[in-house]
Amino acid sequence: MTDTDNETGPPTLGHFTTYRATQRLWSLDPEERRKRALAWTEGLGATTEATQLYIVQGIESDADVLVWSSAVVESEEAPLRFFTARAAAENAHRDLFEPRHILWGMTRPSQYSRAAKSAQEIDPFAAERAPYLVMYPFTKTADWYLLGPETRQGMMNEHIRIGKQFREITQLLLYSFGLQDQEFVVVYETHDLQLFSRLVYDLRDTEARRYTKADTPLHTGVRVSPQEWAKTLG
Amino acid sequence: MTDTDNETGPPTLGHFTTYRATQRLWSLDPEERRKRALAWTEGLGATTEATQLYIVQGIESDADVLVWSSAVVESEEAPLRFFTARAAAENAHRDLFEPRHILWGMTRPSQYSRAAKSAQEIDPFAAERAPYLVMYPFTKTADWYLLGPETRQGMMNEHIRIGKQFREITQLLLYSFGLQDQEFVVVYETHDLQLFSRLVYDLRDTEARRYTKADTPLHTGVRVSPQEWAKTLG
Amino acid sequence: MTDTDNETGPPTLGHFTTYRATQRLWSLDPEERRKRALAWTEGLGATTEATQLYIVQGIESDADVLVWSSAVVESEEAPLRFFTARAAAENAHRDLFEPRHILWGMTRPSQYSRAAKSAQEIDPFAAERAPYLVMYPFTKTADWYLLGPETRQGMMNEHIRIGKQFREITQLLLYSFGLQDQEFVVVYETHDLQLFSRLVYDLRDTEARRYTKADTPLHTGVRVSPQEWAKTLG
Amino acid sequence: MTDTDNETGPPTLGHFTTYRATQRLWSLDPEERRKRALAWTEGLGATTEATQLYIVQGIESDADVLVWSSAVVESEEAPLRFFTARAAAENAHRDLFEPRHILWGMTRPSQYSRAAKSAQEIDPFAAERAPYLVMYPFTKTADWYLLGPETRQGMMNEHIRIGKQFREITQLLLYSFGLQDQEFVVVYETHDLQLFSRLVYDLRDTEARRYTKADTPLHTGVRVSPQEWAKTLG
Amino acid sequence: MTDTDNETGPPTLGHFTTYRATQRLWSLDPEERRKRALAWTEGLGATTEATQLYIVQGIESDADVLVWSSAVVESEEAPLRFFTARAAAENAHRDLFEPRHILWGMTRPSQYSRAAKSAQEIDPFAAERAPYLVMYPFTKTADWYLLGPETRQGMMNEHIRIGKQFREITQLLLYSFGLQDQEFVVVYETHDLQLFSRLVYDLRDTEARRYTKADTPLHTGVRVSPQEWAKTLG
Repeated sequence: MTDTDNETGPPTLGHFTTYRATQRLWSLDPEERRKRALAWTEGLGATTEATQLYIVQGIESDADVLVWSSAVVESEEAPLRFFTARAAAENAHRDLFEPRHILWGMTRPSQYSRAAKSAQEIDPFAAERAPYLVMYPFTKTADWYLLGPETRQGMMNEHIRIGKQFREITQLLLYSFGLQDQEFVVVYETHDLQLFSRLVYDLRDTEARRYTKADTPLHTGVRVSPQEWAKTLG
Repeated sequence: MTDTDNETGPPTLGHFTTYRATQRLWSLDPEERRKRALAWTEGLGATTEATQLYIVQGIESDADVLVWSSAVVESEEAPLRFFTARAAAENAHRDLFEPRHILWGMTRPSQYSRAAKSAQEIDPFAAERAPYLVMYPFTKTADWYLLGPETRQGMMNEHIRIGKQFREITQLLLYSFGLQDQEFVVVYETHDLQLFSRLVYDLRDTEARRYTKADTPLHTGVRVSPQEWAKTLG
Repeated sequence: MTDTDNETGPPTLGHFTTYRATQRLWSLDPEERRKRALAWTEGLGATTEATQLYIVQGIESDADVLVWSSAVVESEEAPLRFFTARAAAENAHRDLFEPRHILWGMTRPSQYSRAAKSAQEIDPFAAERAPYLVMYPFTKTADWYLLGPETRQGMMNEHIRIGKQFREITQLLLYSFGLQDQEFVVVYETHDLQLFSRLVYDLRDTEARRYTKADTPLHTGVRVSPQEWAKTLG
Repeated sequence: MTDTDNETGPPTLGHFTTYRATQRLWSLDPEERRKRALAWTEGLGATTEATQLYIVQGIESDADVLVWSSAVVESEEAPLRFFTARAAAENAHRDLFEPRHILWGMTRPSQYSRAAKSAQEIDPFAAERAPYLVMYPFTKTADWYLLGPETRQGMMNEHIRIGKQFREITQLLLYSFGLQDQEFVVVYETHDLQLFSRLVYDLRDTEARRYTKADTPLHTGVRVSPQEWAKTLG
Repeated sequence: MTDTDNETGPPTLGHFTTYRATQRLWSLDPEERRKRALAWTEGLGATTEATQLYIVQGIESDADVLVWSSAVVESEEAPLRFFTARAAAENAHRDLFEPRHILWGMTRPSQYSRAAKSAQEIDPFAAERAPYLVMYPFTKTADWYLLGPETRQGMMNEHIRIGKQFREITQLLLYSFGLQDQEFVVVYETHDLQLFSRLVYDLRDTEARRYTKADTPLHTGVRVSPQEWAKTLG
């Protein structure tokens, strides 16, 4: 399950949901509250190969946690199995946790960077993870797709060159064409939010930026274990 | 009821509703919950010629299932009868299921593809169905309608040519002019979401894309029987 | 009350509200539910000269019925009296029915079609009504108002000529300038939604369409008597 | 408190809130309901120099009444005192009335009409009031502010000339730059909504209209005494 | 903790949340209500170096108070620690206070004003504070970032020159690139809202204004001690 060389292996389905606790959670006594919260994260984790938990409370206004799940797409039936199992896992605790934002897509080899898999590419199945995750839906303008391939490659080269100056920051690109409203889900992991903010700032004056139709709402998450999260629940 | 040759037969009213379960459903005991859910799908199914059920939970954030209903429009009174019967069927379980998004329209022979009915055209009354459904409202820009007919035909030919390269993917076009806010409802069925995503990607650099005013929110559904769905309810 | 010749008589205030039933309605036993629903429609009907009821459930997602009320504006106090009486009628059943969308305006002789009152003009006080109603807010672009009067008249002539080819479809135009956000409320009645959809399609490639700033959200309603509606409530 | 000559006296803080009744109000018995409603309006009225009440129920969809309060800004602390006292007055009845839309600003001498105070300028502290109020947030485009002063004055002259043809209609302009999202709150009082609608229509083909970035949502209110309003509550 | 010289010291994380009281707060008896409100503000204050409280009730429609927290970013783990502690503090009173809007970012030396730290720069850790706070998210257009550095410096000079004419008004700039949807959070403190409104008005006809993509929703707050606020709760 750790071979994620997208050029040769099967694609990965990457899935992100932010959840908000219902008022019913806050009416439970604290011990029951923590127990149910842990049972919920365990249930979600049992449905797929890799699951990560992030606090988004205090970072964005209408959710408490972000759950990142990754599944290997070994056959055409994989998405059907993933979503059916996920529904059952969520419904076991639907009185307590409501989904708020869902973003998902599948990996594919990039057409702009055909070199061997980069050291800056996120492996969604790795055990070691960075403390911060940033993720957003991304859609290019109609004009972008009518530019010639060399023009597009040139602009992407500028973009890639800047990204390479921030070696600590890793990236994952999911394709959502025809699956959700956005074209891509762009995912970053970092140990340093200040550094990541600098990277985004430095990308502002690239030519390719003109061809961004939408790159919001952005989600930033702070990685925690289920136990660390349960401690914040009172 | 299986003759869906739109060129000669009566038009079809195609109707899609996403529903979200209320918190009251989750407060019922699991057996009662499944029983009420099955009674609800049965009631909806009894009001029209063809009804399909899809899980959208985990795929989009504010709904649980998508119901696709199709009715033959044999007379001017058909929509009146359809919507009156539908209201009664929904109201028998309004404490449990709330409508969230509704998209509907009626079929009409395409002006751009007048050949005999294509093998890629969806028959809404067929018994065999694909596991995935993708559907979205679609509106063209005002400028599109002021182009000459030959220019429009040329752009559509490019579009149709790409679609034909994906023979496994079938399509249905509903006209919603004057019925809802969008101009069309575009519906696809596929056995392979990865392949479908590639088709949408390949259509991005066609000229006609410039004349798309809106093609969101897109809905993707995973087909299940009512019994399979009931199993996910806990 | 049947003289609606707008050129000579007083203007009409036309008023549309979509309502959604609260969860409390669904918690009542069915007989009480139907009784309260009928009392509510009766109360609304008693406040003005003409009231019509339409099902919008299943047609749009966040309402159950549409109520169309018409009042003769015989003096400056007429709107004050209309809205005060309406508030009292609504408040007698506010635990059961919540307003969702409100559109209103007043009639005025058209500046583009000064001929004697057309056979295609809706009489809001007539007893006989068509089974389908379509209605939407309408606002033109700032540029439209800076065109010369002859250019505007020419574009409107094209528009009017197409409308006249659909003799069965009748129309009412309400002015909302300075009363609500839209400039007009456009209302149609028809016996045939398929035909109406064709009319809207045919109007898409007129020049005047370029000067449409907004014509959504569109509301389509299926006419029912209060008793027919009560039967759908379970 | 009746000297409102803005050129020489202190500015006025003008404040508008629309409120919606909670479901709890409708669960009270009618006598208690009317008593609490009157106590609420009395409490709001006690916090400032002038308070007016308008029904907006049936006119816009998500509120029941509009409260217009005016306070003299005699010192820098005046807004602090106004908002602190207002919070206490609202909170005494927060189980029954929820704020929905808030618009506010402060008066300032107009730069376009420096003549002595016009007869068409609203005195917010006058005892006599018109039966209808219309009010909306107003923001100009960035381009407007880059036009030369003479061009702007010319456009405003055209605007003012049309307004003067409607002598019965009075106006108040509040500045909201840096206080809320809009630049201005524009307020009108009239005895005749039909006439007011004509004024807005006549202003549509002025040049200045091109430089309007936003002038919605518009609020129209029907003036009532607290006692008249209480009667509509059942 | 009072050394906030951003050029040499560590950056500051600035964090703003507006909160709305739930209906449950209003159902408590007044003494319990005030006690719980004070415990909540105390809990939030205990998680970071500096916390300020502002009433926004009556100023904006969907919140009651605004809490401004500032934390020194001494290491990469600081945001992780800040958000985890904040979650725990909020969750102890989640039945009573719901977050509505969250804006945050980190300080950085400005590239346009490299002089020694200005007297008009806000020190978030100072004990003395102004009675009014104004704050909004700010994003520039894509075109801004493609202008040459000298053009940008020229436009900023005009902007800075006007700001310096209002010596009483202080400012803080937080960078949010890659952390939230906006690029910056702009914060002002003032003793005089009328004067601040004049400053914003005077900035409207600067060239740089053309390059503002978004500067709303703006939040204005009136500073209170927790005890003063508790008094308004009934």
